Amino acid sequence: MDKLDVARQFGLLNRRSQAFIANACADMEIAFSECVLLLNLYHRAGINQENMSAILFIDKAATTRTIKSLEKKGFIKREQSDEDKRVKKLYLTQKGEATREPIFAILQRWMEFLSEGMDRETFDTVLKGLKIIAERASSKEFYALCGKEEDERGGTL
Amino acid sequence: MDKLDVARQFGLLNRRSQAFIANACADMEIAFSECVLLLNLYHRAGINQENMSAILFIDKAATTRTIKSLEKKGFIKREQSDEDKRVKKLYLTQKGEATREPIFAILQRWMEFLSEGMDRETFDTVLKGLKIIAERASSKEFYALCGKEEDERGGTL
Repeated sequence: MDKLDVARQFGLLNRRSQAFIANACADMEIAFSECVLLLNLYHRAGINQENMSAILFIDKAATTRTIKSLEKKGFIKREQSDEDKRVKKLYLTQKGEATREPIFAILQRWMEFLSEGMDRETFDTVLKGLKIIAERASSKEFYALCGKEEDERGGTL
Repeated sequence: MDKLDVARQFGLLNRRSQAFIANACADMEIAFSECVLLLNLYHRAGINQENMSAILFIDKAATTRTIKSLEKKGFIKREQSDEDKRVKKLYLTQKGEATREPIFAILQRWMEFLSEGMDRETFDTVLKGLKIIAERASSKEFYALCGKEEDERGGTL
């Protein structure tokens, strides 16, 4: 039974992570979805919007909203690609770059909170396993399991 | 960096679990939130609405909506408590009881899908760890971490 309750745990951890991060980032005027996008942009300067949407695993419309909001607040800038004028590449501004350390510190605090009382080795195993099952959940095999064709927009069923 | 991306993984696993379960339960006309409630009622016959809300970790209004929907569809029934007339206790109907095996089978399939290619021992460690960190995330200490008073309604920040 306990094993089958995992869906509830994903929901709970998702809600609590969002609540903690949103609360901690409020002073910087960064929303949860914006924080996740920044986190994925720190080491992917020049990524285009489409690939960012695929990485975040949210649909393009939601990704565009988050990008526009971050741009308006001055954290990121969009530049036209030299190779393809239709493609916009994403870069951090100086203000965006300055969020790196505080955001890392916030996430570090969250991880430390979650892992308190658990030995480091076990926590590392849990994180590695979580990454593997998250990759599995976002794989193409998911659609076969659901008996559906893959979503053309890039996988948000 | 990878470690800090765990918030995205919780979100992804939450969305995919919901999508899979909703899709698999559609034939029974059971929504995702209803499935999670049933799952927690199978071994808690007679639980009252308030405690169910606390277990599900969603607010009372959302719990009430799910309960009313399940009652309307004939899966559960509410009975007045003998001790306190204001309290409603929840029970499965025969139709609700009949969902137990198919829902367990659906969740079993999801767990098997997620764990494919991972050895059983590692997967068990991940599930146990997940349970521990979910409990930690839903503990009272969470509010202190956020620098807030505990939510009186029972903990949905």
